[in-house]
Amino acid sequence: MLKETQQQAPHHVVIVGGGFGGLYAAQTLAKAPVKVTLIDKRNFHVFQPLLYQVATGGLSAGDISSPIRAVLNRQKNTEVLMGEVTSIDTKEQKVMLRHREINYDSLIVATGVSHQYFGNDDWAQKAPGLKTVEDALEIRRRIFIAFESAEKETDPEKRKAWLTFVLVGGGPAGVELAGALGELAHGTLKEDFRNIDTSEARIILLQSPDRILPTYPPKLSAKAQADLEKLGVTVQTGARVTNIDNNVATVRRGDVVEEIQARTILWAAGMKASGMAKVLAESGGAELDRGGRVMVTPEFKVPGHENVFVIGDLANYSHQDGKPLPGVAPAAMQSGQYVGRLIKAKLKGETIRPFHYLDWGSLAVIGKHAAVVDFGFIRLSGFLAWIVWMFIHVFYLIEFDNQLIVMIQWAWSYFTRSKGARLITTPGEQPVIMLDDDLNCDTCNYGQQTHRA
Amino acid sequence: MLKETQQQAPHHVVIVGGGFGGLYAAQTLAKAPVKVTLIDKRNFHVFQPLLYQVATGGLSAGDISSPIRAVLNRQKNTEVLMGEVTSIDTKEQKVMLRHREINYDSLIVATGVSHQYFGNDDWAQKAPGLKTVEDALEIRRRIFIAFESAEKETDPEKRKAWLTFVLVGGGPAGVELAGALGELAHGTLKEDFRNIDTSEARIILLQSPDRILPTYPPKLSAKAQADLEKLGVTVQTGARVTNIDNNVATVRRGDVVEEIQARTILWAAGMKASGMAKVLAESGGAELDRGGRVMVTPEFKVPGHENVFVIGDLANYSHQDGKPLPGVAPAAMQSGQYVGRLIKAKLKGETIRPFHYLDWGSLAVIGKHAAVVDFGFIRLSGFLAWIVWMFIHVFYLIEFDNQLIVMIQWAWSYFTRSKGARLITTPGEQPVIMLDDDLNCDTCNYGQQTHRA
Repeated sequence: MLKETQQQAPHHVVIVGGGFGGLYAAQTLAKAPVKVTLIDKRNFHVFQPLLYQVATGGLSAGDISSPIRAVLNRQKNTEVLMGEVTSIDTKEQKVMLRHREINYDSLIVATGVSHQYFGNDDWAQKAPGLKTVEDALEIRRRIFIAFESAEKETDPEKRKAWLTFVLVGGGPAGVELAGALGELAHGTLKEDFRNIDTSEARIILLQSPDRILPTYPPKLSAKAQADLEKLGVTVQTGARVTNIDNNVATVRRGDVVEEIQARTILWAAGMKASGMAKVLAESGGAELDRGGRVMVTPEFKVPGHENVFVIGDLANYSHQDGKPLPGVAPAAMQSGQYVGRLIKAKLKGETIRPFHYLDWGSLAVIGKHAAVVDFGFIRLSGFLAWIVWMFIHVFYLIEFDNQLIVMIQWAWSYFTRSKGARLITTPGEQPVIMLDDDLNCDTCNYGQQTHRA
Repeated sequence: MLKETQQQAPHHVVIVGGGFGGLYAAQTLAKAPVKVTLIDKRNFHVFQPLLYQVATGGLSAGDISSPIRAVLNRQKNTEVLMGEVTSIDTKEQKVMLRHREINYDSLIVATGVSHQYFGNDDWAQKAPGLKTVEDALEIRRRIFIAFESAEKETDPEKRKAWLTFVLVGGGPAGVELAGALGELAHGTLKEDFRNIDTSEARIILLQSPDRILPTYPPKLSAKAQADLEKLGVTVQTGARVTNIDNNVATVRRGDVVEEIQARTILWAAGMKASGMAKVLAESGGAELDRGGRVMVTPEFKVPGHENVFVIGDLANYSHQDGKPLPGVAPAAMQSGQYVGRLIKAKLKGETIRPFHYLDWGSLAVIGKHAAVVDFGFIRLSGFLAWIVWMFIHVFYLIEFDNQLIVMIQWAWSYFTRSKGARLITTPGEQPVIMLDDDLNCDTCNYGQQTHRA
């Protein structure tokens, strides 16, 4: 049983993670007689489904981010804390930060997942994934540096390598990134260069299963592939990446092994639970699945713990149809809302109906004129699907001004090809100069912080 | 005399720098029978007058930036090159990049200025200035980390230091930054925190002369100071900074020396010419003024060189009324246009009227309800001045979609206090975690790249 609320100290709900799951859990508890503390490493919530737009210069990071404090500032029972949880003591009911402990009555862990490189962690540097705003800015930098470098390169082979983009993983993330890249090369950037034809860029999407978007109906996979090919993307299914080196991806398809020379290799495959799953396993005896996600009860509890919940991507919730819930925003939102309502009900001694995931369907966008949508009862592709995709994504942007701005950016770029946010900014505190030899050298790894100021 | 245009090789104008001066020079040459090459270290033009909005979370970097290629892509005689000029050979008429030389017939240098620390270059790390997009993101990070840290700090003295912001320099840049900070602390952030009252933040603007905005009429200086004080800014005139250490600014006013404990110290004083001035002095024998700017003829030429021009901030042009042209965007634009027209005319064997700087007046904004405007024939302050300031700034944003977006952001934040772009992002390629001890430690310099991933 949950602890009773006392007059002086209300029931304290600690939420770790300010993504869709954590934020929706907090908002569900807005008017409950509880104290809520939301802890996140970052000061902002990010609308992950549109991160690829930041990575390809269509939107600014600020357009898809909302300060967590601002989102929750009217919720007087809620405190936001920027910090990192290092461990959890489920016996003493407290979470530990670097210099501080926080006691909880109920704990909700919602720290999500990131990519995994299947044991090849050294690939992360050579083929970055797209999970954070910093990832997006780094990928944006690599993409636009590649075009700049190709423009200056006189050796045809080297130029070809600059104009080759390899994407690993044909799920929604890889498909959307490939579509956006195709559109950049064949549309947005077409008039910008004098020495290269950007539409000669090769964009290669590698997918290990036999079709892209394998969780969608086969017909939509085929439609998505056709749409990608129209944008100049080469889709290789049944293609397994066996090695990634600086500027070379080694790919095996059946018995054929190919080495692709590419200065830009991006990763959109695999899934690895965040570090909090291990913390829960060590402290709370939680059981983890192969991806490291936490196995939870039908009420999203860690088995054996009445007051420790795991929601969103980090949970392996297989009670609805035997398959884990998909790692998408609606599943995170719904699990957050459910756990919030559950805590409220228990405090009142009430019960609520069991969790039922309402599948809103699947969406993926391919460039700015096409998408595929699977609502179960209706399947769309092409322009109509794109319109649906756009409205749904804008609708779920947390802040109204972001909604407005993203709508305008899209409307504008739809008619003009303009993409204003394609800045090459450089990591590091000092203004960093992109030197010529950074652009042209063969061996230097321009992704590392070796720039000179 | 300029070289004659030949049938096969048109007159080649090389422009170094894609700021207001370089961009306007390039655009003036759009339809001339010349070949233009614009070289910049960055791939984007930045609207510097609004950088402080990025630094205070009001706008995203992308909102005030335009890809140089996109701005010039319809100008078929123009090529854009991302790279850095390392030296110039005025005899052979060529500029050198790392791995490449480019011959010119006419050369226009427009690389601007940055801050100077009056011989204390080690202060740059402790009190960053605001000249580049990276500067703005770093300052934004420091400002919002300060509030986050104050929220967590329990020691009153340390909390006070986190909530103390010192700005050095009372010119337009310092005044606008101070106003935006005042507005953040007293408006935007007011509801966001639970343990601190952000309106207790001390914002101290240090100005060495006896009034802020010394190039404006004294009445407007007084009005600006009053407006700043309404936003909670403390203005100290006649205050000289004698030392800056980690978190301590030492200030002398007359005989009184004060040490101000402040975790955030920002620099908006001094002016130092970019490195290209020295290059011109060495190669072309250019004479430099005390700030390192290049002394130019009435036609913006380096004396002794018929085909080498210096425009914008980098030039010391004192032919109009004995004083150098002010380092503002309109002066850079006008000098760029003039030199463009001059080159066109000379190629036709024509002459044009001597350069005459048209002073559009001076503007500075103080928070979102007040500004001071000096058009010479009319002087405004308060809300009306703010409206004028807003329209002028939006009008000169290079791209139309940027104009629209900035207008909406301002209109929205005007009515709601919302500021969506207050992200704390961290330098470095890996997603960097803001650890608790980064927030709380006394001695660590969180500005340096010592974060752990």
